[in-house]
Amino acid sequence: MKPTPERILDAAEDIFAEKGYAATSLGDIADMVGIRSPSLYNHFRNKEALYVAMLDRLIIRFSEPLEWLLQGDVDRQRVLNWQRQSVELHAENPNLARLLQHAALSGGPQINQLIEKLFKPLAENSANLVGPNVPTLMERPELLPWILMAFNNIVMSYVTMAPMYREILGMDPFSEEGTRNQIDSIRILTEALWAYNEPAKGSS
Amino acid sequence: MKPTPERILDAAEDIFAEKGYAATSLGDIADMVGIRSPSLYNHFRNKEALYVAMLDRLIIRFSEPLEWLLQGDVDRQRVLNWQRQSVELHAENPNLARLLQHAALSGGPQINQLIEKLFKPLAENSANLVGPNVPTLMERPELLPWILMAFNNIVMSYVTMAPMYREILGMDPFSEEGTRNQIDSIRILTEALWAYNEPAKGSS
Repeated sequence: MKPTPERILDAAEDIFAEKGYAATSLGDIADMVGIRSPSLYNHFRNKEALYVAMLDRLIIRFSEPLEWLLQGDVDRQRVLNWQRQSVELHAENPNLARLLQHAALSGGPQINQLIEKLFKPLAENSANLVGPNVPTLMERPELLPWILMAFNNIVMSYVTMAPMYREILGMDPFSEEGTRNQIDSIRILTEALWAYNEPAKGSS
Repeated sequence: MKPTPERILDAAEDIFAEKGYAATSLGDIADMVGIRSPSLYNHFRNKEALYVAMLDRLIIRFSEPLEWLLQGDVDRQRVLNWQRQSVELHAENPNLARLLQHAALSGGPQINQLIEKLFKPLAENSANLVGPNVPTLMERPELLPWILMAFNNIVMSYVTMAPMYREILGMDPFSEEGTRNQIDSIRILTEALWAYNEPAKGSS
């Protein structure tokens, strides 16, 4: 069996991801771990400390694909690999997307610092990640963050909206086939963008 | 001043959209309207009835752009107009996106019927909306719902994730400029997809 602190983090992840920060009680988490609430304080100072530790652990894990990408050439094949890794990671563990979405909707402690850890490397490399391959965007560099957020939304909201999409997709969004279709769709959108030359227009 | 039932629906929309179904109390809503909780029951049977009436009103409003599109030819210019109308409607009223996202994360009453009203017309017309213009997808028709959901996520998650994107975008996502950049980005992605011919591959 895993050590108690890790089991507490696992349970916290699932419950915070389902209910959001405000609606989660430490009692719920203790119950799920099978310990008494006071024992929880032997490992985490309070609800906020547990929330931050739990999110920190997830952010480290979800930052790996981008770190891997930025350690080498940002060429097309490696961008597609990064996207695939990200989709697969979110399918394996839908909790990060859910936790961030809850925090965006209803707030959560220290959320600015957490966003910074996760999104800043993405934002700082937006030109690098999207730009050079897309002629149209070379002329509209101000749109780069919007395009990057668009792809981020495609990946993360597939996870957070999954219960609503089950019927429309006709299958479990997290099934092997569902995940493969999601990866293929993102690849096609990406390659389409790379191939695109916007027709010249009068300056507007 | 608006009639009381409408003021109750307005307040319910804002509070359910912020907190989600479970965390919202009728007392919060009555306080915001400036009436006493028991008066609320003169207009709505209970919390569930209020929630459903409030969401129904929103879904009717947000269904209008697609109804408009489907009443005429689904040509390229009208598809772009539909997308623009949808983005502008969500910017004017971010509550529907937030409410659906809360429901997807934590549940809500009668949510299946509500999804059906909103997404079924979209799903039933996916071939019509995406298909004929995208040669690549003529050969991968099974991806149509994923592509449609991808664009839906770009539109709706821009709204639900807005507080997290403020810093990355460097401006209020709902400002005039922010909304215009979002519309331009979606247009470019759409036109890129229309223009795309996936290179032929060995059957895989």
